[in-house]
Amino acid sequence: MGKLVIVGTVAFDAIETPFGKTDKILGGAGTFIGLAASNFNIDSAVVSVVGGDFPQDYLNLMSNKNIDVSGVEIIEDGKTFFWSGRYHNDMNSRDTLVTELNVLENFEPKVPENYRDAEVVMLGNLHPSTQMSVLNQMTEKPKLVILDTMNFWMDCALDELHNTIKHVDVITINDEEARQLTGEYSLVVAARKIHDMGPEYVVIKKGEHGALLFHDDNAFYAPALPLEEVFDPTGAGDTFAGGFAGYLAKTKDYSFDNMKKAVIYGSTLASFCVEKFGTQRIENLSTTEIYKRLDQFKSLTQFEIELN
Amino acid sequence: MGKLVIVGTVAFDAIETPFGKTDKILGGAGTFIGLAASNFNIDSAVVSVVGGDFPQDYLNLMSNKNIDVSGVEIIEDGKTFFWSGRYHNDMNSRDTLVTELNVLENFEPKVPENYRDAEVVMLGNLHPSTQMSVLNQMTEKPKLVILDTMNFWMDCALDELHNTIKHVDVITINDEEARQLTGEYSLVVAARKIHDMGPEYVVIKKGEHGALLFHDDNAFYAPALPLEEVFDPTGAGDTFAGGFAGYLAKTKDYSFDNMKKAVIYGSTLASFCVEKFGTQRIENLSTTEIYKRLDQFKSLTQFEIELN
Repeated sequence: MGKLVIVGTVAFDAIETPFGKTDKILGGAGTFIGLAASNFNIDSAVVSVVGGDFPQDYLNLMSNKNIDVSGVEIIEDGKTFFWSGRYHNDMNSRDTLVTELNVLENFEPKVPENYRDAEVVMLGNLHPSTQMSVLNQMTEKPKLVILDTMNFWMDCALDELHNTIKHVDVITINDEEARQLTGEYSLVVAARKIHDMGPEYVVIKKGEHGALLFHDDNAFYAPALPLEEVFDPTGAGDTFAGGFAGYLAKTKDYSFDNMKKAVIYGSTLASFCVEKFGTQRIENLSTTEIYKRLDQFKSLTQFEIELN
Repeated sequence: MGKLVIVGTVAFDAIETPFGKTDKILGGAGTFIGLAASNFNIDSAVVSVVGGDFPQDYLNLMSNKNIDVSGVEIIEDGKTFFWSGRYHNDMNSRDTLVTELNVLENFEPKVPENYRDAEVVMLGNLHPSTQMSVLNQMTEKPKLVILDTMNFWMDCALDELHNTIKHVDVITINDEEARQLTGEYSLVVAARKIHDMGPEYVVIKKGEHGALLFHDDNAFYAPALPLEEVFDPTGAGDTFAGGFAGYLAKTKDYSFDNMKKAVIYGSTLASFCVEKFGTQRIENLSTTEIYKRLDQFKSLTQFEIELN
């Protein structure tokens, strides 16, 4: 069975959208990635840190999905990372209202012994040195290392980011961040420059416009499913990454052709994520639901043109 | 042979981009649509108006591509419509520097006798009453009427636009305009509302993010080809519409399945258009070039996932 180790935040989110608002609910990149990846029949572990205020129920929710949470350190006298944000009417931009790092401030990830030989490592958005320390704990070189990052680290830890990127096979990054990292407007040129920094595969996430996968001179485009209503975009990018990583860990095929499918799985899972607040929609997806939506992706994109 | 009548501006453009600038060159929606549609083996006519200052060479350019220009009225003592614009660094937004309507101000389109029974009518972006007058000249009800429009007419001729839209089978409109026309942010909901206004098919153009085709509960997504460099976006939307209309006029199959292919042809031709200033790149496309790019569209979008 494929083995996937995930590092990322496990946190509280409080979200406001034009459709409503939540109290503190379950959030964090590690959580969304873990839940998305749990839809594939794999062994996965989330490495993270929470405070004594973090409900056991949330950890149980993950364990019950067969996610190993022994690498989620609990600091009893600490408080869990908390983020709060408000989405604008277009749901494409948001203001951060609160960021309390709390226990995340001194987070030192510890990969469980039995996951130090995992074939696939998914480095969720964190300080690039924290991401690197996970790679350093691996006893065998992983078959595939995937890194997600954001503009914040480009602003305040660019050298460390460049260093970590060198050790990565796939990077997932949004369009604006790809432009910031490279100083190039064209995503084709930006992807090539990022490729030169290390990653053989570059996934550029474009939110409601889908995602682009670049490899050498090849490109693949997965649209986002056009939805009636985007209820809450929080975690969509992480859910995408979790679906992508989970599918690859399951199939153990790291070719460009199989990565295309991984991108489609990622987009499919992300399309569920935005339909309800937080992790609500992706906590209990049935195979039938997922297959139905994969079928929608097929209709959305597949065509027949005979060239003669 | 399929018969296509096109109404739209034939004009002078002067364009500034970060890559350079032009003097007055050949432009206009009718020109781009006509040139794009000329890649299909059909009978097509452009209905428009120009001034005495319009070079015969430009008309010859179109005639040589088998485009009937007998419906391009020449007002000897008038001046040709002139537009000038400057693109910003991101190439996605632009400022209009000059708009001189000139002979366009009193434009009364006259569809040539032998085109009044055309199966397909492409109404390029013009005052909705001007578009309607073309439909009124048709002696037989066209099999397919396609309308392109823009926010300007929503601001200053909304009632007329609503009236013309009623008589249309396909509308092509950009995402912001679809939102303005319906007051809906979700493109799925916006497309449904536009559908209720008349058109059975709604094509939403998203520039560098591609185009969406909606029909009943079905959606189809054609990405834009990711390009190294977008040199000049002028006319890309019209080129898309011309490829779309030309393919349908050629194949005479107005089903959703065939419209998907038409959208891909439209995107393919638009991807050439942006590579050089104005009409330069689409004046002489070879079948080989087009097929090669269609093949790139296939690689970009096609995948195999077995659901079991």
